[in-house]
Amino acid sequence: MTIKFPPATHAYQTPHSPRGANAHFSLGLIGRGGGFGLQQSAIAEQDVFIGFHRNGKVICLPFCQPPQPPPPDPMTGHTTSRPVSVELVPADKITRTLGWGSDCWETEGIRFTMATPVSGVPDPQSAPASVLCDAITPAIPARLTVDNRAGKEPIQGFFAVGGWTGCRLLADETGGDLAGVATIAGYGFAYDPKVNPNVQTIIDFDLYRLFGRPYPVTFRLGPVGGFIVEVPAGETITVDFILGWYLGGVVTQGAYHCVYAYTRYFTNFAEMARYAVTRIADWFQQAEAADKVLSSSNLNDDQKFMIAQATRTYYTSSMLFFEGNQPRWVINEGSFMMMNTFDLTVDMQFFELRQHPWVVRNVLDAFTDEYSYYDQVHFPDQPQTAYPGGISFTHDQGIFNTFSPHGFSTYEVPEQHGVYSYMTHEQLVNYILTVAQYLHATQDNAWLIRRKSVIEDCLDSLLNRDHPDPTQRDGIMDLESNRCGSSTEITTYDSLDPSLGQSRRNLYLGVKSWAAYLSLRWLFNRLKSLGALSIREADQKMRTAAESADRCARTILSYYDPKRGYIPALLDGKDTSPIIPAIEGLIFPYRLGLTEEVAFDGPYGELVKTLRQHILHILKPGVCLFPDHGWKLSANSINSWMSKIALCQYICRQVLKIDFGDDEMLHDRAHADWWRVGSSTNPGIDQIFNCVTGGYGFHYPRAVTTVLWLDE
Amino acid sequence: MTIKFPPATHAYQTPHSPRGANAHFSLGLIGRGGGFGLQQSAIAEQDVFIGFHRNGKVICLPFCQPPQPPPPDPMTGHTTSRPVSVELVPADKITRTLGWGSDCWETEGIRFTMATPVSGVPDPQSAPASVLCDAITPAIPARLTVDNRAGKEPIQGFFAVGGWTGCRLLADETGGDLAGVATIAGYGFAYDPKVNPNVQTIIDFDLYRLFGRPYPVTFRLGPVGGFIVEVPAGETITVDFILGWYLGGVVTQGAYHCVYAYTRYFTNFAEMARYAVTRIADWFQQAEAADKVLSSSNLNDDQKFMIAQATRTYYTSSMLFFEGNQPRWVINEGSFMMMNTFDLTVDMQFFELRQHPWVVRNVLDAFTDEYSYYDQVHFPDQPQTAYPGGISFTHDQGIFNTFSPHGFSTYEVPEQHGVYSYMTHEQLVNYILTVAQYLHATQDNAWLIRRKSVIEDCLDSLLNRDHPDPTQRDGIMDLESNRCGSSTEITTYDSLDPSLGQSRRNLYLGVKSWAAYLSLRWLFNRLKSLGALSIREADQKMRTAAESADRCARTILSYYDPKRGYIPALLDGKDTSPIIPAIEGLIFPYRLGLTEEVAFDGPYGELVKTLRQHILHILKPGVCLFPDHGWKLSANSINSWMSKIALCQYICRQVLKIDFGDDEMLHDRAHADWWRVGSSTNPGIDQIFNCVTGGYGFHYPRAVTTVLWLDE
Repeated sequence: MTIKFPPATHAYQTPHSPRGANAHFSLGLIGRGGGFGLQQSAIAEQDVFIGFHRNGKVICLPFCQPPQPPPPDPMTGHTTSRPVSVELVPADKITRTLGWGSDCWETEGIRFTMATPVSGVPDPQSAPASVLCDAITPAIPARLTVDNRAGKEPIQGFFAVGGWTGCRLLADETGGDLAGVATIAGYGFAYDPKVNPNVQTIIDFDLYRLFGRPYPVTFRLGPVGGFIVEVPAGETITVDFILGWYLGGVVTQGAYHCVYAYTRYFTNFAEMARYAVTRIADWFQQAEAADKVLSSSNLNDDQKFMIAQATRTYYTSSMLFFEGNQPRWVINEGSFMMMNTFDLTVDMQFFELRQHPWVVRNVLDAFTDEYSYYDQVHFPDQPQTAYPGGISFTHDQGIFNTFSPHGFSTYEVPEQHGVYSYMTHEQLVNYILTVAQYLHATQDNAWLIRRKSVIEDCLDSLLNRDHPDPTQRDGIMDLESNRCGSSTEITTYDSLDPSLGQSRRNLYLGVKSWAAYLSLRWLFNRLKSLGALSIREADQKMRTAAESADRCARTILSYYDPKRGYIPALLDGKDTSPIIPAIEGLIFPYRLGLTEEVAFDGPYGELVKTLRQHILHILKPGVCLFPDHGWKLSANSINSWMSKIALCQYICRQVLKIDFGDDEMLHDRAHADWWRVGSSTNPGIDQIFNCVTGGYGFHYPRAVTTVLWLDE
Repeated sequence: MTIKFPPATHAYQTPHSPRGANAHFSLGLIGRGGGFGLQQSAIAEQDVFIGFHRNGKVICLPFCQPPQPPPPDPMTGHTTSRPVSVELVPADKITRTLGWGSDCWETEGIRFTMATPVSGVPDPQSAPASVLCDAITPAIPARLTVDNRAGKEPIQGFFAVGGWTGCRLLADETGGDLAGVATIAGYGFAYDPKVNPNVQTIIDFDLYRLFGRPYPVTFRLGPVGGFIVEVPAGETITVDFILGWYLGGVVTQGAYHCVYAYTRYFTNFAEMARYAVTRIADWFQQAEAADKVLSSSNLNDDQKFMIAQATRTYYTSSMLFFEGNQPRWVINEGSFMMMNTFDLTVDMQFFELRQHPWVVRNVLDAFTDEYSYYDQVHFPDQPQTAYPGGISFTHDQGIFNTFSPHGFSTYEVPEQHGVYSYMTHEQLVNYILTVAQYLHATQDNAWLIRRKSVIEDCLDSLLNRDHPDPTQRDGIMDLESNRCGSSTEITTYDSLDPSLGQSRRNLYLGVKSWAAYLSLRWLFNRLKSLGALSIREADQKMRTAAESADRCARTILSYYDPKRGYIPALLDGKDTSPIIPAIEGLIFPYRLGLTEEVAFDGPYGELVKTLRQHILHILKPGVCLFPDHGWKLSANSINSWMSKIALCQYICRQVLKIDFGDDEMLHDRAHADWWRVGSSTNPGIDQIFNCVTGGYGFHYPRAVTTVLWLDE
């Protein structure tokens, strides 16, 4: 490590989220606010006020719009009873420490920390209630320390958030047992008044009026709720409190009418908060333990930042529901709000199998039982001639808390050219790959045995999309789902150029199909060893899968263009596009422990070596590197995706044994700055355009692919 | 009527609302949209598309942002499968007819009507369930007629609304019994597919994609939901449908946890819609009957417009809840969202006693039992010396569906100079006035008998605020509530200048206090005749009330300034401001049937005549008339309120027998244009600044004072 970078900016937004509540408290952006968000596709833009007041002078961290003194009252001409000035601390006087679990800001006299425990959500159907409850309590702990040791007079520290409506005092509904404010929007803060005797809840219009009054009030009309803490001269006081969210009742529509799982344990915000305030110390400890895991890793600071940031946007987008006694885990596609988008699941399962493997099963169950379908297929030039297709899976399970009808996504429509067309082949492959990874990680053989016929159907379906005549199969998709009508299937890379977006004869999907055939072989082998398939049947299916994997590898290799030094993106003899995701499929056999299949000298050594050659050849400035050293997934598109880059980096290092040397730090710095600088306002954006940002699609969960790096 | 005005603009927003659902569908504004709103303090800004498509050419009413063709797909370069053009109908090719109950737009080939039945909500505790259910079903009927009689080819009429998220098909959850789309936000539309065989539900991105596809789809990801109706050449087809809203579960917090009353009859949107589609014809008939009442009145067109518009914003702000079996009626203070603001109730009760008298009782009960308090009072120059005060009532009962704790409003805080200070005296007077009006209208003597001690307390409280020494009383408020701390009480006119905003020795509040004393005398007389008070007690209290009314009238008269020709706004010998609301109090004895008390030759003839003189003297350009002939409530403020002007116009004509001649049309035209032009985007704004608009505080309910004009 020889490169010394200038210090990275700390002025970016980070959403701090409990698990499974689709909730966040955003902080970190300078000069624009953040604060609470709940079930929303917009970033939080509430003013957050953290600081202290001394004798008419307010010092405040800059997590808000520049404060403006109130206009004079029309009747009296008054502004405030006594004059108040507000000064925002300049960004360079603040230090920030973002860990995997905690996020801490410090400036003279003030230290503010929030924690978001990283550990996963236990299986609701087997975990003790107390354990599940603790993991999904929709609250995060916060800690404000106000240091007046050098002071000669008392000061008032404060934490407050603006943009609120319908404020109520928790003291009113708990007989004073709890203090804080909750809002009609479902969020608020709370603290234990017994252990915080110096703390007083406030509601007001702004900092000027708050400190301009003879004494603080709880002005329920006001948009700013918070607390002030009286700190005598010579003392330091720390206030522990929680930021919380609560939505009761049915919150989903369409195919399922669900409640948030936490409503099983808490009937309202105050009950939830009463529990949460007792857990602050433990939750901070858990977060610090997570901090240590990340900080003690061998990763560089930019990689650590990306893991910390990505983990948070994943949890921002997480929802754990119950319908009756049935848990339902949903990851929103960030601010696009599509639920359990399958082409995200396939990449996120690496993280999920580490954190909470049951959610992979839960999502797979929903796709198997509810969001699968059987289709017919056709050659694109013979749309009228239908051939047997087979099973596949929908792109998603709904949008904006609205579950789509069984067998249908919200995303896919017929007769749609490009984005929003069907992803039939892509999702079939994703299902097979995810099932195998789940089985490998959990040994949940009972599940596999129950799903045996589905796995068999998957093989048939994959074969049928290659060619109706088995003798003409080459392992690569050639037939389109009839669900498309006259249009054609797309891949997850729909918004890139056609080289990645078209499914038929797509290199990216081809290598993933190869991995899917290998995964099927692995699954049938397991079914055989479990006695769930007869040896004869199993062997026959394993042979079929292996033959297709072989054919697939051969076909891919046959398109290698030695003059260009890489395999073009479309295996049609015409396309010449270089794409990085050609290598994506390699991760699946690798993680499945199929060491030989990904070895340079194994049965697919030629493919693996060629893909290594491919990636080394195209990872060059002007081809698949942006001018800032960031990775360009497709040479022909300015749109590059953080999550997929992280995945491919891992594959390059672990499977293809590529050592980027010092260049790796350049890559990582570029990617980290795409988030820290280009997308500082909209955290977790996956689609980065020309090294800046797309603006939308924030809180995207897929970049937890970065967590794979911790395995290296 | 000799003045001929140019035609008034029709390009203003009108919210069409069911009763008691805090819901609206806004339409009428050109070029900016409208559509659905629900429980929100923002105007609706959804694109509304109404028109027809013929062969790639779309003709659309202009209730939307100017449509933009979609960008080409990044993968395919395609925009739509076939070319589509969209043309918005120019405003001058559209006619609009806004009645009391219906609102109709017509252009060549298209006629669109919505209806909002005007009749009130029956008493939930005595009305048959079927009657209550029908009145509060959260839906309004709509009717689209597409005329293709001159056409040579089929055309597709359409109705669609944009800006939606989480769309679901009603057909999916009703087995095809019902068609339409509902959204996760709680609103949508529905029609009966059996009686509309030519109609097809659609969801899509925009008009271009909708008509650019080979066939229409229901693209659940899309933000535009609606329907298309196939109209064969030579035919006209009418589609009847409903626009509906539904929010289940607890929707309020704080002191009461309520559900919408309609949830008693319908458990979800589809159930509600299934009922509503059967009621379309009847509801249109009811609306047409209301149209006739207004159109056959002797009012001018501007007055009719104001009544029609004001009635709608009242219902937009209405909420009928149940907590358990207890109904709770709430009128929001428009987009300020304060609940049951008492200084609005006192003016709206004229309308409410006509439409649904029980709501006045319901709101009074809440103020009596939950939102009353007893205070002490002090002279402003002797803040430390407390005297007995008495009962009064809070400014409001909460905000944003959050009920404040008993005895407290969300609005009033101590130590607050000007706006947001306490309105103790104002609300005490408002309570007395409202109780008397309610009793007069309903003869609900049982209520009065039950509230006897409260009425007694009201008299004591009113007297105590005049002077602690009975011999020094002059009928006018001189003491401030201790709740204010060191600040002073305000009136409802808080946001005008001090001449109207200060309560103490305020002329406006003085005349209302006189009316309150008369109302108390009337109430005690009734209690006497009901035998609820002994004759001796009653006579003594009536005498006390009458003496205070006399003193009050004498004091007011003593401040008449013959040189200036009016009574200054503050009865302190210093103020010289002319204000229109001096006359407001006159309406209460007049509506109470106290004919003599408001007669020019009655016991208060001098007061009534002087107030007539007052108003005639100040209603002049540069004093209390704006340059456009609109009324300026206070000569010293640019802020004038529609609802109060309407009230004072009624008082001028009915009580003070003023004939404005042709000037009246100039006044009404000015006021109507404040709404139609100045506040065209934000319907129902009460506070108009300099004849334009304040921008906020729309959907304000108080201007139903205009409905008083129908009694003239």
